[in-house]
Amino acid sequence: MSENWYPSKWGSEDEVGALNLISTSKIIEAAHLVSKGKIYNLAQILEDGIPSPPFHGQFLYFTFRRHALDLKSPGKQNNAGGMNIRLEMADHTGTHIDSLNHVSIGERVYNGVVAEEIMGTFGTTKLGIEKTPPIFTRGILLDVALNKGVPILEPGYSVSSEELKDCLRTGNLKLEEGDAVLVHTGWARHWMTDNEKFLGPVPGIDLSAAEWLADQGAAIVGADTWNVEVDPSVDLRGADAVHQHLLTKNGIRLIENLSLEELARDRVSEFLFVCLPLRLKGGSGSPITPIAVT
Amino acid sequence: MSENWYPSKWGSEDEVGALNLISTSKIIEAAHLVSKGKIYNLAQILEDGIPSPPFHGQFLYFTFRRHALDLKSPGKQNNAGGMNIRLEMADHTGTHIDSLNHVSIGERVYNGVVAEEIMGTFGTTKLGIEKTPPIFTRGILLDVALNKGVPILEPGYSVSSEELKDCLRTGNLKLEEGDAVLVHTGWARHWMTDNEKFLGPVPGIDLSAAEWLADQGAAIVGADTWNVEVDPSVDLRGADAVHQHLLTKNGIRLIENLSLEELARDRVSEFLFVCLPLRLKGGSGSPITPIAVT
Amino acid sequence: MSENWYPSKWGSEDEVGALNLISTSKIIEAAHLVSKGKIYNLAQILEDGIPSPPFHGQFLYFTFRRHALDLKSPGKQNNAGGMNIRLEMADHTGTHIDSLNHVSIGERVYNGVVAEEIMGTFGTTKLGIEKTPPIFTRGILLDVALNKGVPILEPGYSVSSEELKDCLRTGNLKLEEGDAVLVHTGWARHWMTDNEKFLGPVPGIDLSAAEWLADQGAAIVGADTWNVEVDPSVDLRGADAVHQHLLTKNGIRLIENLSLEELARDRVSEFLFVCLPLRLKGGSGSPITPIAVT
Amino acid sequence: MSENWYPSKWGSEDEVGALNLISTSKIIEAAHLVSKGKIYNLAQILEDGIPSPPFHGQFLYFTFRRHALDLKSPGKQNNAGGMNIRLEMADHTGTHIDSLNHVSIGERVYNGVVAEEIMGTFGTTKLGIEKTPPIFTRGILLDVALNKGVPILEPGYSVSSEELKDCLRTGNLKLEEGDAVLVHTGWARHWMTDNEKFLGPVPGIDLSAAEWLADQGAAIVGADTWNVEVDPSVDLRGADAVHQHLLTKNGIRLIENLSLEELARDRVSEFLFVCLPLRLKGGSGSPITPIAVT
Repeated sequence: MSENWYPSKWGSEDEVGALNLISTSKIIEAAHLVSKGKIYNLAQILEDGIPSPPFHGQFLYFTFRRHALDLKSPGKQNNAGGMNIRLEMADHTGTHIDSLNHVSIGERVYNGVVAEEIMGTFGTTKLGIEKTPPIFTRGILLDVALNKGVPILEPGYSVSSEELKDCLRTGNLKLEEGDAVLVHTGWARHWMTDNEKFLGPVPGIDLSAAEWLADQGAAIVGADTWNVEVDPSVDLRGADAVHQHLLTKNGIRLIENLSLEELARDRVSEFLFVCLPLRLKGGSGSPITPIAVT
Repeated sequence: MSENWYPSKWGSEDEVGALNLISTSKIIEAAHLVSKGKIYNLAQILEDGIPSPPFHGQFLYFTFRRHALDLKSPGKQNNAGGMNIRLEMADHTGTHIDSLNHVSIGERVYNGVVAEEIMGTFGTTKLGIEKTPPIFTRGILLDVALNKGVPILEPGYSVSSEELKDCLRTGNLKLEEGDAVLVHTGWARHWMTDNEKFLGPVPGIDLSAAEWLADQGAAIVGADTWNVEVDPSVDLRGADAVHQHLLTKNGIRLIENLSLEELARDRVSEFLFVCLPLRLKGGSGSPITPIAVT
Repeated sequence: MSENWYPSKWGSEDEVGALNLISTSKIIEAAHLVSKGKIYNLAQILEDGIPSPPFHGQFLYFTFRRHALDLKSPGKQNNAGGMNIRLEMADHTGTHIDSLNHVSIGERVYNGVVAEEIMGTFGTTKLGIEKTPPIFTRGILLDVALNKGVPILEPGYSVSSEELKDCLRTGNLKLEEGDAVLVHTGWARHWMTDNEKFLGPVPGIDLSAAEWLADQGAAIVGADTWNVEVDPSVDLRGADAVHQHLLTKNGIRLIENLSLEELARDRVSEFLFVCLPLRLKGGSGSPITPIAVT
Repeated sequence: MSENWYPSKWGSEDEVGALNLISTSKIIEAAHLVSKGKIYNLAQILEDGIPSPPFHGQFLYFTFRRHALDLKSPGKQNNAGGMNIRLEMADHTGTHIDSLNHVSIGERVYNGVVAEEIMGTFGTTKLGIEKTPPIFTRGILLDVALNKGVPILEPGYSVSSEELKDCLRTGNLKLEEGDAVLVHTGWARHWMTDNEKFLGPVPGIDLSAAEWLADQGAAIVGADTWNVEVDPSVDLRGADAVHQHLLTKNGIRLIENLSLEELARDRVSEFLFVCLPLRLKGGSGSPITPIAVT
C-alpha cells in the first residue's frame, strides 16, 4: 500500500474498518463451526499486580461496599447486604482490543482522520470503541511456537509472512476473508510469573506478516503478547509499524495479552471466535473476555 | 425453597451456580439458532453522565494520553502517536452482570458462604466474577410491555409468574432449562433521556416470577432496568427479595440495564445469547456487552 | 485595566502572580498577629456526598487496606497492621485554591500564556499549582452577611466594591497590600445540608468588587461559596468575569468553599492566614486546609 | 511503656494524641520564632512516577478538562475556558502525615480502639485524619547526616536515641514538649533520581530513639524517608516497631517523604512548623505541604 492509505476502501466516513469483511453469511458459517459445545476462555484474569505498561498506568481495584457494613445501612430491609468493587484503570487493561483511534501515523488515525480534530475530554468523537461492532466470526490459531518446536518464542523473535504461511500449511488450514487470526507465541507463560520479562522485548509478527494478513482479508489479529508485533523491531521502518499497517492503514483491530495456552494445548486451529468490547464512548480500546467455541 | 437454601444443588464447593445448567449440547443447539447472521447489541453505551446509583459511585472516564502529545515523547520513533483513556468506575457500571458474591441473605452469599470470611482487599476469594464461565446459550425475550400493549411499563409495575407465562403463550415460546431469560419493560427509553426517572421506582419481576423462573431452570435473568426486580416491592417479603431468591439462593446471575428496544422492535423472541464478563478476580460483577444473534 | 493585561506587572515569565505582594516583612508582621494562640480551621470536611460541580466530577474515596486483612499478609512481622484510603477526585475538591492556569480569557491564561502551548498529559508545563508558594500572610474577614444583618445572603446577591468598603468601615479595618481577603456570605450553612442549593445560584462579589480588590493589592480572595463571584451574574460582562479579572488578569488566586462560620461567629476580622496547597505538578488547583490564627 | 498502653494519657475518648501537647502559649511562641520572613517548603512535588509503595498503589493524575475544549461547550459565555485535573491516589501519597488509625498493634490502634469496630466503607468512624488539628508549633531539625559528616546516611543505618541527643548537643538545641522533630538523613536525594533505591532499605530512627522522643514530649516526628524508622530493623522487636511506639502507643503522628535539603543546607535548626492535613473523613493520612518559617 502506498502512502495513499486514506480514504479507506469502505469510504471516507467508515468507522467499522476490516470488520466490514464479516458478512452475515460469515457469521452463520462461524456459528456452525460449533460442534463440540466446548468454550475456551482467551482472557487473562484481571488481578492485583498484572502487567501494565507505564503508558497506560497501573490497574488498580478495591473492595468498595461490603455486605457486613451494608447490612447496617439506615433503612435496610429484608436483611439483604451487597458488595461491589471500584476500578481505576486504562481502557487497554489486561486482555484488550485496540480501537481505530488508538494509533496514528503522524497526526492521522484510521481513514485519515486528524486525531486532534476528534479529540475531546471523553476520548474521540469518531472511531471510538463504541463504534466497534460485536465480533462474531471464524477464528484460526497460527501456532508459531509449535511450528518452531518450542514452548515459548524468544524475546525479539520476528515472525514473517513466510512463517505464518508455513503454520497454515502445517495445520492444513486456510486463512479466509473476515477471519480473526490469533498468533500463539507461548509468551503468556510469563504473565504473572515474570511480569518484567512479559513487558520487555517480545516475539511477534513483523511488517511482512502484517502486510500479508491485511492482503488476505484478516478482520482481527491477536496474540498472547502485550504488543502483537515484534519488539524491538529489526525492520528499518521502525517501532509500531505493524500497528500502523494493520490498525491505522487497514482498519484491522489488534487484540493483545490473549491467553492461548489451552487452545494450543488442545491443538485447536479453527473455531467460532466471539469478542464483545465494552461500548465506551470515544474509547481507544476495551478490556475483553474473548472466547473460542468448538 | 425452604430456608435450607445451602449447600447448593451442585455441591457445597460450587461457584458456577445455574450456569451448570448449560450443557455442551445446549451450547451446540444455541449456536445452531443462528440462521440470519444478524447481531443485536444489548449494551447501553458507556458515556459521561450515565445513571449510577450512589451505592456504586459515578462512572467517570477521561482522555489520558493524546497522539499530539505522545508524538513529542523523547525517543519517539516512526511517527507513531497513541492515545488512551482512564476509567474510574464500579464493577456494576452500565449494562452489567451480578456475580454470585454480590448480594447476601444476612451474612451469607450463594452456597451459604459467609461473606466476611471470603472478603478481602480485592473483592472476595470465592465466587468472584472471574469464576463465571463465558455465557453462550439460548436466549428468549419475554416482552411484558408488548403483552400489556404499552411502550413502557409504569414505575413500580409488578410482573408476576402468571404474566411471564402469558408472555410465553402469546409468543408461542417455551422456557427451557439453561436459557437466558430477558424481560422487556421498555424502561430503557428513560436511559440518558431522564436519568432521575431511570434510577427511580421501576417495573420488574416479583418474587412469584423469580420462584417460577428458578423452578423452570433459567440460567440467567436479565432486564432493561437497573434492578430487574420491581422496586419498590409490594411483596411483604421486601426489597431485594428477587435478587436474594435468584442470585443468592439459586445461583442465577442477574443482568441489568440491558438495551432491548431493537430486539423488541423486531419481535425477536429466540436467539443465541452470548455474554462475556471481564475476569475481575474477586469482583462482584462486570460491565458487559451481551449480544443476541439470530 | 485595558485589554493590555499581559505581560504581568511582574514580568512576562512570572508564575507567582499577586503572591509577589507578600514580602518578607509582611510575613513577619503576619506572624506577629498571633496573640491568643487560637487556630480556626477554614476547611470543609472531605466526605462522601460533598457538593461536586459536574465540571470536576464526583469526589469518591474508599477504604483500601484494612488492618484485619493486612495482619494476614505473608511475612507479616511484629503484629503490625495498616490501613489506607484510595481517592478519586478533581484537584478542585472541597475547600480549594485555583491556580493561575485554571481559567482563560479565550485561549490565554495568566500572563498571556496560550493554554494549549503549555497543556500536557499531566496538567500544564507552566503556572501549575506547584509554582504557588506557601501562603502565609495577613488575612481579613469581610463579613457581608453581618453587614446586611442576615445569616445567609440570598442566591444571586451581588456584592459590590461599595459594600466591601462598607464592611471595612464597619469593622474599622483597612485592606493592606498582600492581604488575603475572605468574604463571608453565610452560604456554607447549605454545605451538606442542602447540596443542590449549595451548587445553585450563589451570592458573591461582582466585577466592581473584583476590580477594587485588585487595585488595593489583595494577594488572595476567598469566600464560603463554590464560586467566590456572584452567579448568575447580572453584570453585562458575563459569567466568570470575576475569575477572569482576578485570576487571569491580575494573578490573584481564588479560594472556594471556605468554612467561615466560626470566624464570623467570633467576630474575628484580622488574623494570620496560612494556606499550603499540594505541590501537584501542572495542577490547576489543590484541595487545602487553610487556617486563621489569632 | 508496658503493654498497658491504653487508654491514652488524654483519656479513653481522645483522638488528638500528642498534639494535645501544643498549648496556646506554645502556638504563640512558635509564631514569634518568625524573624526573617523566610518560608521553606518541605514537600516533594507530586508528579508522574513518584515513588509509591505497592501497599498504597500508584499515584496517577491526568488533565481532565482543557480550556480549548471547554470554550466549545454549549452555552459558553464570556469566552472563559477552564481546565482541571483528576487524581487517583492513596491518602499516603508523596509527603504525607499518618493519622492515628493508620497502624495497629494486632487488632488495636491508638487508644486501644479495635480497628474493625470503627472500620467502614469510607475509612474509620474514629481517629480519622479529619480529627487531626492543624499543626502549628515549634519545629527543630536534627541533622543526623551532618552529624555523621555524610551527605546521605547508608541504607539500613540505625539512628539511636544517643545519636539524636548528640545532634541536639552539636546544634546547641533543646527538644521541648510539643515540638515537631524533623530528622534529616539526606535520603531525599534519591527521590526521583533513583526511586527503586528510595523505596528500598532506608536509614531511620530505631526504637530507642522513638522511646526517647516520646518521653521528651515530641508532638510530631518526621523524616525525609518513606518510613521515618530504619528498615530493615535490626531490633529484635521487629518491623514497624517505631510506628507502633510513636503512632499507636503514644499518639505521635509521623510525617514521611519530607524534603529537608534546603533547611539542612541553610543550617536552620529551629523554626515555626506548620502542617495542614486535608480533612478527609475517616482517612488514615493526608498528602501535605508542610513549611518551616524563620
